[in-house]
Amino acid sequence: MEPKKMAIIATKGTLDWAYPPLILASTAAALGMEVQVFCTFYGLSLLRKDLSGIKISPLANPAMPMPVPMPVFVQMLPGMEAMATMMMKNKMKAKGVASLDELRSLCLEAEVKFIACQMTVDLFEFKPGDFIDGIEFGGATTFLDFASTADIQLYI
Amino acid sequence: MEPKKMAIIATKGTLDWAYPPLILASTAAALGMEVQVFCTFYGLSLLRKDLSGIKISPLANPAMPMPVPMPVFVQMLPGMEAMATMMMKNKMKAKGVASLDELRSLCLEAEVKFIACQMTVDLFEFKPGDFIDGIEFGGATTFLDFASTADIQLYI
Amino acid sequence: MEPKKMAIIATKGTLDWAYPPLILASTAAALGMEVQVFCTFYGLSLLRKDLSGIKISPLANPAMPMPVPMPVFVQMLPGMEAMATMMMKNKMKAKGVASLDELRSLCLEAEVKFIACQMTVDLFEFKPGDFIDGIEFGGATTFLDFASTADIQLYI
Repeated sequence: MEPKKMAIIATKGTLDWAYPPLILASTAAALGMEVQVFCTFYGLSLLRKDLSGIKISPLANPAMPMPVPMPVFVQMLPGMEAMATMMMKNKMKAKGVASLDELRSLCLEAEVKFIACQMTVDLFEFKPGDFIDGIEFGGATTFLDFASTADIQLYI
Repeated sequence: MEPKKMAIIATKGTLDWAYPPLILASTAAALGMEVQVFCTFYGLSLLRKDLSGIKISPLANPAMPMPVPMPVFVQMLPGMEAMATMMMKNKMKAKGVASLDELRSLCLEAEVKFIACQMTVDLFEFKPGDFIDGIEFGGATTFLDFASTADIQLYI
Repeated sequence: MEPKKMAIIATKGTLDWAYPPLILASTAAALGMEVQVFCTFYGLSLLRKDLSGIKISPLANPAMPMPVPMPVFVQMLPGMEAMATMMMKNKMKAKGVASLDELRSLCLEAEVKFIACQMTVDLFEFKPGDFIDGIEFGGATTFLDFASTADIQLYI
């Protein structure tokens, strides 16, 4: 039987939204599915060699659980983005959630194919050396060719 | 004939983004489709007993229609999130849009299956008692199993 | 052979998130696919006659590449939204990225069907005259009917 296929477009580059594509891709690959992740716009962040710059913002998300209620004008003070990022990372570590690096390695070992969107690479002036090895470069056609034969398509 | 199936991942917890999963799920169920909504990250808000804490933020969304144009530095003043939430709720009521509670009840009556993501329940330290009855708990595998046989998959 | 089909829900109205539905829809149509774009919530902006009001916000997106690092309390100063929008548009022009107007025209020429969500048209008090000609009006049922027979479904 042919394996099931999943096509993901990863468009976000914040700490919270970097997780879903990597969790879904690594899990699907572990279940034997063939997976492609097309990274475009801020989702190119997932392909950087160094993932430590990925941050979370408490702004504009009143649904984010905060240890202490914090008015918006405090959330925007200098250093709050760094603090929210550190708090979220610490909580994830304490709860045994894998890091983005670990999840990405699982994906690569399981032969998840990562594709960088050439148009947004050019637009944001990324250099090929910014990215990890083993990825491909492509465009909307690359994504659509695979997605139109896939069992699951998700725009994240 | 087997019914069509729809798999949704609900990841957001603001007033505007709580609507699409509940509208799509209740409509699909009314059309006879089999529907699962996997709630993860801020989407866990959809499963809380009390939905009254769900808010909207005017920040970072210049596309939000505002009755009065409002500069960003006003949007972030204390109380603006509460005001925007109240205004949106009043407008929805005036226009006859169902409340989140009503839509969720329609979903439950039509046997939409809600699944809470165990990983994010643990991460955000939700307690089982925070949630409505009749939901299930699961992980990415739970979602992928259903999604890979579904006719529609949406990441919201 | 029947053409492949793609169903998109476009829900966002900022400059960055207005691009993906129009790029994917125009590319898919050029590949011979049948495409429907259901515009709801802020995604109704894509159907306005005048697209020049579409803006980008640097707030709450620490993943946005900025020419100069800029603290959050600077991002929220009056005029920063307009400045970020102008910078992004200039960069796109310099890099040869098509404008939203050009991409939408390509879609219309290739017979991509645009559907405005009647419920959010009413909610946000849009007038039929605000929109381009040749679009249809519908609801969740309209979307689900097409999506459940489509090869690709994306919620953007």
